[in-house]
Amino acid sequence: MDYQPRPDDVRFLLNAVLDAPARLQALAPFAEVDEALQSQVLEEAARFVGEVVAPINREGDEVGCRFDKGEVISPPGFSDAYQAFVDGGWPALSAATEDGGQGLPSVLEAVLYQWLSAANHGLTMAPGLLHGAYACIKHHGSDELKNRYLQKIATGEWLATMCLTEAHAGSDLGQVRTRAVPQADGSFRVSGSKIFISGGEHDLTPNIVHLVLCRLPDAPAGPKGLSLVLVPKLLPDGARNAVHCERIEEKMGLHGSPTCSMRFDNATGWLVGESGRGLAAMFVMMNSARLHVALQGIGLLDAAWQKADAYAAERRQMRAPGAVPASRGAEPADLIAEHPAIRRILDTQRAWIDGARTLAYRSALMLDVAAHDAESKARERAQRWCSLVTPVLKAACTHQAFHGASECLQVFGGHGYVREWGIEQIVRDARVTMIYEGTNEIQAIDLLVRKVLPDGGAAMSAVLLDLRDTLDASREADADVQRRLAQLRYLGTTIAMSAHANPVLPYEVADDYLRVVMLTMMAWAWARIEATDESTSAGHTGRVRAAAAFRRWVLPEFEMRLGIVKRACEGIALSHAAAAAEGVAR
Amino acid sequence: MDYQPRPDDVRFLLNAVLDAPARLQALAPFAEVDEALQSQVLEEAARFVGEVVAPINREGDEVGCRFDKGEVISPPGFSDAYQAFVDGGWPALSAATEDGGQGLPSVLEAVLYQWLSAANHGLTMAPGLLHGAYACIKHHGSDELKNRYLQKIATGEWLATMCLTEAHAGSDLGQVRTRAVPQADGSFRVSGSKIFISGGEHDLTPNIVHLVLCRLPDAPAGPKGLSLVLVPKLLPDGARNAVHCERIEEKMGLHGSPTCSMRFDNATGWLVGESGRGLAAMFVMMNSARLHVALQGIGLLDAAWQKADAYAAERRQMRAPGAVPASRGAEPADLIAEHPAIRRILDTQRAWIDGARTLAYRSALMLDVAAHDAESKARERAQRWCSLVTPVLKAACTHQAFHGASECLQVFGGHGYVREWGIEQIVRDARVTMIYEGTNEIQAIDLLVRKVLPDGGAAMSAVLLDLRDTLDASREADADVQRRLAQLRYLGTTIAMSAHANPVLPYEVADDYLRVVMLTMMAWAWARIEATDESTSAGHTGRVRAAAAFRRWVLPEFEMRLGIVKRACEGIALSHAAAAAEGVAR
Repeated sequence: MDYQPRPDDVRFLLNAVLDAPARLQALAPFAEVDEALQSQVLEEAARFVGEVVAPINREGDEVGCRFDKGEVISPPGFSDAYQAFVDGGWPALSAATEDGGQGLPSVLEAVLYQWLSAANHGLTMAPGLLHGAYACIKHHGSDELKNRYLQKIATGEWLATMCLTEAHAGSDLGQVRTRAVPQADGSFRVSGSKIFISGGEHDLTPNIVHLVLCRLPDAPAGPKGLSLVLVPKLLPDGARNAVHCERIEEKMGLHGSPTCSMRFDNATGWLVGESGRGLAAMFVMMNSARLHVALQGIGLLDAAWQKADAYAAERRQMRAPGAVPASRGAEPADLIAEHPAIRRILDTQRAWIDGARTLAYRSALMLDVAAHDAESKARERAQRWCSLVTPVLKAACTHQAFHGASECLQVFGGHGYVREWGIEQIVRDARVTMIYEGTNEIQAIDLLVRKVLPDGGAAMSAVLLDLRDTLDASREADADVQRRLAQLRYLGTTIAMSAHANPVLPYEVADDYLRVVMLTMMAWAWARIEATDESTSAGHTGRVRAAAAFRRWVLPEFEMRLGIVKRACEGIALSHAAAAAEGVAR
Repeated sequence: MDYQPRPDDVRFLLNAVLDAPARLQALAPFAEVDEALQSQVLEEAARFVGEVVAPINREGDEVGCRFDKGEVISPPGFSDAYQAFVDGGWPALSAATEDGGQGLPSVLEAVLYQWLSAANHGLTMAPGLLHGAYACIKHHGSDELKNRYLQKIATGEWLATMCLTEAHAGSDLGQVRTRAVPQADGSFRVSGSKIFISGGEHDLTPNIVHLVLCRLPDAPAGPKGLSLVLVPKLLPDGARNAVHCERIEEKMGLHGSPTCSMRFDNATGWLVGESGRGLAAMFVMMNSARLHVALQGIGLLDAAWQKADAYAAERRQMRAPGAVPASRGAEPADLIAEHPAIRRILDTQRAWIDGARTLAYRSALMLDVAAHDAESKARERAQRWCSLVTPVLKAACTHQAFHGASECLQVFGGHGYVREWGIEQIVRDARVTMIYEGTNEIQAIDLLVRKVLPDGGAAMSAVLLDLRDTLDASREADADVQRRLAQLRYLGTTIAMSAHANPVLPYEVADDYLRVVMLTMMAWAWARIEATDESTSAGHTGRVRAAAAFRRWVLPEFEMRLGIVKRACEGIALSHAAAAAEGVAR
């Protein structure tokens, strides 16, 4: 069974829970993008994903990408599907109309990419970096580079890569060694080796635009010596540039996407942005790229859930305790969907999917607000949300993608472990999302050490207070969320104080802190969902079960993680007090 | 880097923590098996596993088993390694000497199989079922069957299978349809199809002995109509029997072990045990088979940890907060082992490995005590432990194998997702252990619904009180364990009472209950480890870090799970009280 997007569910979250149509129409560029148009885009996207992209997922895994003398051959059907994607205008969905795009909101693109990832993670990797490259060139490229590359990239006619990692420089980009030497004509000659380059070589588009992190002569050591250079596979005169794929990796999954080792041999390129500001040029797209990975996670989890849900509604094994006898008929066994252990798995994953995508769609809305709201305060507030919530979603959604997909595999019993049902592919594909675009451990450090603590928790408090203002304390669920929001604000202060005594502590509790934030926000999302859900809304029954599963089996982790962080801080406080007491005694 | 067993660590747990040498020597058959002999067996096993079994693991995954016209071709080196295994007498380690075995304790075999699984899960599957088949035939086989098959199986000259699952009958064996029709000569003709048969066909031994769960004519429906029939690949006269492999599965992992679909076409076989008592004949080996799977889990986690630990001690990325500057030298970055997030992963997995294997080795000791102790009370007590603790270990150790190996993969960053380092293979291989020999959900139901509740928690209480008696309340750690043991006993009573009002409730909280049991037992194991660990013991420093990780990051799940179960029971109590109050009001 191939993945099938369900626009009804999404519409409920966008329209009823997030009030997206009205919020978007209040932004000048989207004044014409009314609910009917949004709905039409979603319907067409669902159809395209279900009919064109999903059916070739399995072969993408089984045949995979092949490497032959420097060339990469895509799996069967990928080239045609990508062309249809370009022809349909999907790569350019949120690109500006003056660049050949459709100028639609980020939030619609978020839904599209969640569905694409669910249907075919491997193929989706190809256009996945287009928007990052587009934003990077648009913000930092010279007019010449913009003229030459912006429209080709916006429309997906040419694909792009980000060439960052080297064998010895993964999370630690400051160690990058690839060199770029300036030439008299203003171009640069790039030499070095990059690894783990998604789509570094392929047969989907004639040209490939590489954005290469490298070091100019005499650049200082470390991250401040890095520059970004654009190196195309084909030079403007059509000649082949000196950049080549040396091999593709054998991976655990994601076989539909070639992970390339690239060699640059005095390849010709052009500086993007200022020299020494390479990381800054890249970071312009960090929030949208990380949100994109979070959406991959949600999509993959949804795909796994959809398979498991369908299987549980057909497979019969044993009598289920509590099953309604009337549902049995003459069958010798009950549906496994009626067994409590299976029900728990399905409802729990549903709780993650709907809670997480409510937050992810809200983040995409905030990207639109941050870019287009007329008021600077609103833009700032949206920017603050994106900065703080993006690492949380990236880590939590990808973690759940892998672990939740594994739970869904369990629904199949032994049948889940064999290729036939396609569920094990999702588990393998999902695993990489916990690693790329910054490992989940780095997301947690980014959140707590780089973003929450430096201002003493002020920005995070502001985000939490904004959330509090959306709640109605007369509702029990909302009051519960308010309590958790307050606990979370206090937790930030506690960590900040403990960090004075032990600067290592925040690194030790960063993962726990991130989980507390995610669970609080999920609780907020579910409170808002329940407040707006009508018995007539599409998917209502499933959400009622998911809401119960969330409170019963997901949310208890909140107290556990809170306790872990608090005890770590108390340990610091105690040893501090003991040291002080010892000082007095001495 | 291939897996390398570490006998020193094991000896510390066996000798210092579990007092295994003295306990074993107190059993009549092992009076001569002193500490020196045990140690010698472990050293030889470690050498064999490290030198012969581990080096062919990678090819076992990459080349895998191939299927060609009904034959299965093992991966390169597997046949020679298996022959060396047989020649070394390893399959017969715990088999009785009169059957050609070495008559050694189960606990040594447990260590051997943990190492084998760590080194090469695929190859280890081949002899993994020998002991089950041996025990089954020894307890239930006719003298004729024993004469014909017992020694061949004990020595591993012929391998064996368990043919249980059919396409529509997985967890629900009562639905098995394979038929066995009695013949005039006392034999049976077996017809039907079985799936997921590990080692159903291979080239490691000339003959393969299938133990087939099937249904005799006029047998009642359901589990009570099942019988066990022995069907050899080669008949006693050397002729090929009508049992054939139709295909092997394409799986997520475990490519070194062929998972076969078997067809029986009027194949000749002989009844093992009484007709209609097929499940009972199989269940004689259930505890040792499930403990075996738990040991696979611990072995795989240890293998993952060993790889990650070695990588973290070589790879450098970024400055680590809190790292000792002297350790840096001229290096531009610190070892990732010094980064708190990586340290946490490594120490937490170490905590699981040492805690879990202490419990698993104790279970294997109890198998020896249950079989050989002169006193019936001691045998009963040991049997009680095995019955209650085995499902806990099966579920918890295999869960941790997969999730912990995934954490270890994370230590490698992007390098963990590619085949090169071998860590992703462990994650894929480990996944199946959560499914076979009864899914982990079924283990939880087996524990709570079939074993704890029927006697109102009496047997479980007895096990917990036995554990309490080993503790010294004057030690803080021991007192903490005592408190948890008491909470766990009370929890059993609470669930039993709530189950009266809602019989479905135990099925809903079975997983949580199992986790509470495991965490309590792990706390007990770590308290005993710490009580006996000397600063001069091999591996002491790692255990000190692991003990801290256990308290800080593993044990908090105890309160979370306890809370989940309690709230479920309180919900029942509340609705019960409300119903009662309504009854009064009416």
